[in-house]
Amino acid sequence: MAGGLRKRGGRKERLAMRAAKPLIDPCPPGQLGGRYRPLEDHELRQVFQTALDLLSHLGMGEVPARLRTDLLAAGAKQASGDRLCFPQKLVEAAIASAAKSFTFHGRDEQRSIVVGGDRVYFGTGGAAVQTLDMETGLYRPSTLADLHNFARLQDVLQNVSWFTRCCVATDVPDNFDLDVNTVYALLKNTTKPIATSFTLPEHVSPIVEMLDVAAGGRGEFAKRPFLKAHISPVISPLRYGEDAVGVVYECIRHKIPMTCITAAQAGATAPATLAGFLAQSLAETLASLVMVHAICPGFPMIFSNWPLVVDLRTGAFSGGGGETALLNAASAQLTNWLGLPSGVACSMTDAKAVDAQAGVEKGITSLAAALAGGNLIYESSGMTASLLGASFEAFVLDDEMHSLTYRTLRGIEVTEKSLAFETIRDAVLGEGHFLGCENTYQAMERDYFYPALADRDEPRTWAQNGAQDAWGRARERATDILNSHHPVYLDKEEDRYIRSRFKIL
Amino acid sequence: MAGGLRKRGGRKERLAMRAAKPLIDPCPPGQLGGRYRPLEDHELRQVFQTALDLLSHLGMGEVPARLRTDLLAAGAKQASGDRLCFPQKLVEAAIASAAKSFTFHGRDEQRSIVVGGDRVYFGTGGAAVQTLDMETGLYRPSTLADLHNFARLQDVLQNVSWFTRCCVATDVPDNFDLDVNTVYALLKNTTKPIATSFTLPEHVSPIVEMLDVAAGGRGEFAKRPFLKAHISPVISPLRYGEDAVGVVYECIRHKIPMTCITAAQAGATAPATLAGFLAQSLAETLASLVMVHAICPGFPMIFSNWPLVVDLRTGAFSGGGGETALLNAASAQLTNWLGLPSGVACSMTDAKAVDAQAGVEKGITSLAAALAGGNLIYESSGMTASLLGASFEAFVLDDEMHSLTYRTLRGIEVTEKSLAFETIRDAVLGEGHFLGCENTYQAMERDYFYPALADRDEPRTWAQNGAQDAWGRARERATDILNSHHPVYLDKEEDRYIRSRFKIL
Repeated sequence: MAGGLRKRGGRKERLAMRAAKPLIDPCPPGQLGGRYRPLEDHELRQVFQTALDLLSHLGMGEVPARLRTDLLAAGAKQASGDRLCFPQKLVEAAIASAAKSFTFHGRDEQRSIVVGGDRVYFGTGGAAVQTLDMETGLYRPSTLADLHNFARLQDVLQNVSWFTRCCVATDVPDNFDLDVNTVYALLKNTTKPIATSFTLPEHVSPIVEMLDVAAGGRGEFAKRPFLKAHISPVISPLRYGEDAVGVVYECIRHKIPMTCITAAQAGATAPATLAGFLAQSLAETLASLVMVHAICPGFPMIFSNWPLVVDLRTGAFSGGGGETALLNAASAQLTNWLGLPSGVACSMTDAKAVDAQAGVEKGITSLAAALAGGNLIYESSGMTASLLGASFEAFVLDDEMHSLTYRTLRGIEVTEKSLAFETIRDAVLGEGHFLGCENTYQAMERDYFYPALADRDEPRTWAQNGAQDAWGRARERATDILNSHHPVYLDKEEDRYIRSRFKIL
Repeated sequence: MAGGLRKRGGRKERLAMRAAKPLIDPCPPGQLGGRYRPLEDHELRQVFQTALDLLSHLGMGEVPARLRTDLLAAGAKQASGDRLCFPQKLVEAAIASAAKSFTFHGRDEQRSIVVGGDRVYFGTGGAAVQTLDMETGLYRPSTLADLHNFARLQDVLQNVSWFTRCCVATDVPDNFDLDVNTVYALLKNTTKPIATSFTLPEHVSPIVEMLDVAAGGRGEFAKRPFLKAHISPVISPLRYGEDAVGVVYECIRHKIPMTCITAAQAGATAPATLAGFLAQSLAETLASLVMVHAICPGFPMIFSNWPLVVDLRTGAFSGGGGETALLNAASAQLTNWLGLPSGVACSMTDAKAVDAQAGVEKGITSLAAALAGGNLIYESSGMTASLLGASFEAFVLDDEMHSLTYRTLRGIEVTEKSLAFETIRDAVLGEGHFLGCENTYQAMERDYFYPALADRDEPRTWAQNGAQDAWGRARERATDILNSHHPVYLDKEEDRYIRSRFKIL
């Protein structure tokens, strides 16, 4: 096929085309999803109604005392035992007053993103305990050095729209030091929106002190918060978790936007039937929203309903199947239908190698979630091994994959001009091809994405160049970035102050 | 995560679960698509109207004499030069009288599929000239032996719903011998629905003689045709191809159902703007339909509008991008909207290696086309290297990938039972988990797909087992099949007769 075109097009035209600079990124982050609707309207209503029924009849257990007081004041009702039930009116009030859309700031304001509507952004969200070593091709425990390296690697990847610490520094044994050094690694290596977890509520205040340093002074962080917290306030099925709820109070006090994650697992902590699973996990995420509503109505919360799948043969979490694609797409659809900012988890793979399995599982799950309109798609970059692993090579490959997805999401502009009747007429009655015509020149950079890592050569050229696979090309690219990109986004004074105050490792 | 579940679930329950037999395939071929709608209704109408305008104003060039007579008799109009135009009424009549749904027979009737509606089937359609050698991991020219091996390999892959010869036997120089030996390889090695190409019209009759032998006697094939022809009667932009039109006449005479393929290339033989591209390629595929209508109204034709993408930097065909996903999904949507049996091409990759690039490109393009409801998704199995290559390993991996896609397509059954209110209540007020409960047992095999090739082990187990990647596992699986599956679907007498009549190599 290439031969035929080449003959027609002519070398000169082709060279002119290759020399042309991209005018605009054809498919930047923030494309609109929503064209894939896994559930019909009446099904959305049924799932929602079941979630409301669960909250009004069964409610939530193990409610911490402070939250119990706030919830009762907001309209929750005492139920059997220690459970609190949420009347439908309370849940509807929480939805009505929720933040529907808000800016998730980068320290660099150019990197801020607006969360909500049908806009889709990929980012990270993992807590891998192992890193795929680039030299051995095998896994080893993740370290603080890995976290620094991942942070500066993703800093140049344009489709990672925010960076949550993707791995846990397992070489930092103390919980407080771990939380502190995690945030320090994010501050030092990137000015994108960032996110972290707080092991305990009492870690929040001191870390806000560090965030204030990076923001330019006491109280400055809260004015334009560039870090959000990942919290799982609900333990499935239908209970609150005390420490996490404590973190929620602290985050709200310090104006830290929150991603409240429900991570129920099908057949283990939620029903195995997909509809029941969705109903329960929707109810649980609504329980987080009601909690936020009771504490501070309208406080920014990403409604992160991540339906996770368990391989029921082994009981092990599995992130790469069709069920994961479907459930997370349905979760995104449900959340967007409620008008809330949606968070889902996709592009997780069960593969350990950066191989065809990883590609298929990441491609299918992330496209499904994006087409359904997931606002923030967590776990989307660099994660491997059922979220147990993080990989530098996967990071750069995922970044390119997201461009394919964004290109798909962008859709087809249908206008009189793009329908190109006259262009077609001219070609049919003229030269018989479209190479070199105005329509083609204008479209070639505006409408098409050209990958940097994907190999489009002929088999012979590929073999002559060493028959490399994508893993190998990604290793080279990741190594290049790590060798050349050494950002220091904290100035000397900020760094000195932070080091004087905290145990920076 | 696994640890936590294991503790709760208990070894006994897990073993009982693993021992349970699958009751039914959770996601067989033929799942319903259509939940992804890349185009809005008014956009569908605009693209269709532009296609009608192209056919009524520009029409088709290079119309072979016999077809010209038939088209004029059917209502086509003489236009400028030698072009024939198709008034809107003629096109609408062709659509109205078209076969909307038909059975594509397997020689084994159990393997027949019904084409049309929103049912989705994956199959093949390639004409690779190179084979990815399993021993060297490099490409070499495809041979007749390869074709036999591909045919018997796919015979056991349940998600390859029909088999078109995926590679060209480049060691058979004579065109007639090539066509004959291609069909012989299909007949000998599989009883699925099959498909082939005819280089010249005069090859059709003798090959039908061979098909009759396999069908049980003269005239028997036509009663239940189990082979369809792949034909590209239109040369973009908007011309007929004489040889291909000749093949169409012969196929209709012999009752061979046809896949009429439009394979326009964006920016080369069609506009680079996606809307214009779709409008032209829709017009061209409609020109095939009008042709069939003029010859034999209602004759079974798969409306195969395959919008192909060219990397405009090089002029080379590229099958793995987001544009391919989007355009083929839109093509499927357009065709289904017209009520015609749709054929699209997806799961093509530009990768040479069976690697992460291959996985991503195949996953994204095939999911998009399937969610949009492509009835027959061609090129979906075993193809690599921008359709220049075919690979045994890719075949077995693609087969498993299709199960993920089918599982996604199957969607979420929302019923009172699957919403599982009572199951949730019992778990919440009881043991606090769902392992071992009736809902889980019933769902685990009915609703979940468990892959055979995808690795879901922990990193340590994976390393202990040799840190294999998907390519390696696929190589083992393909080798196993090729060593063990030697079907001979022609009995001795049939084979003897065919060999006496044709030069079987």
